[in-house]
Amino acid sequence: MESTTVLAEITGSIATVGYGLAAIGPAIGVGIVVGKTIEGVARQPELAGRLQVLMYIGIAFTEALAFIGIATAFIFGA
Amino acid sequence: MESTTVLAEITGSIATVGYGLAAIGPAIGVGIVVGKTIEGVARQPELAGRLQVLMYIGIAFTEALAFIGIATAFIFGA
Amino acid sequence: MESTTVLAEITGSIATVGYGLAAIGPAIGVGIVVGKTIEGVARQPELAGRLQVLMYIGIAFTEALAFIGIATAFIFGA
Repeated sequence: MESTTVLAEITGSIATVGYGLAAIGPAIGVGIVVGKTIEGVARQPELAGRLQVLMYIGIAFTEALAFIGIATAFIFGA
Repeated sequence: MESTTVLAEITGSIATVGYGLAAIGPAIGVGIVVGKTIEGVARQPELAGRLQVLMYIGIAFTEALAFIGIATAFIFGA
Repeated sequence: MESTTVLAEITGSIATVGYGLAAIGPAIGVGIVVGKTIEGVARQPELAGRLQVLMYIGIAFTEALAFIGIATAFIFGA
């Protein structure tokens, strides 16, 4: 009697897919934030300092979502 | 009696899919950042230096998310 | 008595899906970079040389992410 059940030979953790999905939005978001800052500095160079402060706030809020994507793996169990 | 159940013969590591997803956003983000820099330099060529500094900051923050996508495979187990 | 149940006969490596996903972003990113270069050269033809330098920097950073998508298959095991 033989009983062989092969479900799938794919290895690795599904958490990598979770992070991959979580990284799509933040990267586009950071691109838009920095892109608009560059546009703003090109138009009003004397405001560069204030625009860069806003840029770093934008980067912080968007990047955080990707890093939470890593944290979820530990919350739900990698 | 033989009982063989094969659900899928797909091989490889799911981490490649994770990286693939993690690379979508950064590439679009870098495209937006460099695109806006080109637009800014075309409009204000004398600001090229300052705009390129912002461009490299933007590239660094966006590309990092893709490289973390490779790192997650080792964190969670490829 | 023979009892064989085959639910799916899909073969191949999941790494191809990984590369496929990794190629989405770079293609859009390169499109934006070259598109903005064309826009800039149309507006300021005398800056064509400098804008093309930025264009190749942008292409290099975005295309690299797609090629890393091929490398991941060898890193994590195709």
